[in-house]
Amino acid sequence: MKANPERFDRQLRFIVEIDKLKHVFRKTKLFNGSRFENDAEHAWHLSLMVLVLSEYSNQADIDVFKVMKMALIHDLVEIDAGDTMVYDTRMRAAAAEKEKAAAERIFGILPEDQKREFQALWAEFEERKTPESRFAAALDRFEPILQNHLTDYFTWKTHNITAEQLHDKNRHIEEGSRKIWEVVQGIISEATEKGHIRKKNGN
Amino acid sequence: MKANPERFDRQLRFIVEIDKLKHVFRKTKLFNGSRFENDAEHAWHLSLMVLVLSEYSNQADIDVFKVMKMALIHDLVEIDAGDTMVYDTRMRAAAAEKEKAAAERIFGILPEDQKREFQALWAEFEERKTPESRFAAALDRFEPILQNHLTDYFTWKTHNITAEQLHDKNRHIEEGSRKIWEVVQGIISEATEKGHIRKKNGN
Repeated sequence: MKANPERFDRQLRFIVEIDKLKHVFRKTKLFNGSRFENDAEHAWHLSLMVLVLSEYSNQADIDVFKVMKMALIHDLVEIDAGDTMVYDTRMRAAAAEKEKAAAERIFGILPEDQKREFQALWAEFEERKTPESRFAAALDRFEPILQNHLTDYFTWKTHNITAEQLHDKNRHIEEGSRKIWEVVQGIISEATEKGHIRKKNGN
Repeated sequence: MKANPERFDRQLRFIVEIDKLKHVFRKTKLFNGSRFENDAEHAWHLSLMVLVLSEYSNQADIDVFKVMKMALIHDLVEIDAGDTMVYDTRMRAAAAEKEKAAAERIFGILPEDQKREFQALWAEFEERKTPESRFAAALDRFEPILQNHLTDYFTWKTHNITAEQLHDKNRHIEEGSRKIWEVVQGIISEATEKGHIRKKNGN
């Protein structure tokens, strides 16, 4: 094809912009506990989890390529909006508006057709109404739960997260994958039974 | 599907194992120059570059999903073999054997069918004979070149890389994308003309 210089320039500016995701740190630590994970590493890990675990999606014939695209871009809005813990209900509500504006700015760097594609993927992921977005969201929750399981429940202990909160904020995993939800319930039960986390506030 | 516990266990062990890629650091710095990039961040960035720039592949109808899978897994062997600069010809030759053994060990954690798929993708990427692997390899070279361009040529200056070496080790970009090779040649020329790098050793 004959390249359009303005189009290529926008694509390149987007590629440069998204480097900032490597500076957005999450509340969870790498599996060896040595440091916090950043959003770019998380998106990479999630994409590979999608590829390896796609057979556990409740719906058998999902579009794995689409799930992977969602995994790669789902946190880009955090370049502007920052990372907010799912258990911090008040902060999560405030973050939603910021994330919408961030999607407009960041995807808006791209040429119009690609902007539309990326915004649609991000909106689909956020809404969790399709089998693809439900499966992506299930694995997006599974990664930090695994990290807690392997780092002596670092984030859960630091922020006093209870089993009740864990069930409440992760229950939607079941909509994407019954198998992963079963594994996650096992992890939460073990943490509770061994006394690492409380059942609920006040207990 | 009825889950096979041994199969899921292998998949989970692989997912835990690959976290180590976040500890393998490259020779290039993030675009803001603040620190070195790790392999997991690189693989994420590369996967998104594949998605955004796929129209510049020389061959129009490439399988973008396949290119993206290659991008996500291409550096996993460096968990065992470490990162070696492409300009370090002697070290690169020694690394090849280590990388082969690493592919056997790391992909071997997966169930047999997935092991075969991942090994085939990695081998295809390394051989650079298909349009998909040539395009993946072109972008894999483009990312560190962009990083040098934006960080005052940090790696090239640190390791005394010449324009001749840059042309020699990156010429294969043209096999995957004439457009990207044109952009890269512009970056190398600018660095040479402004006196940041030498044309060749002894000059």
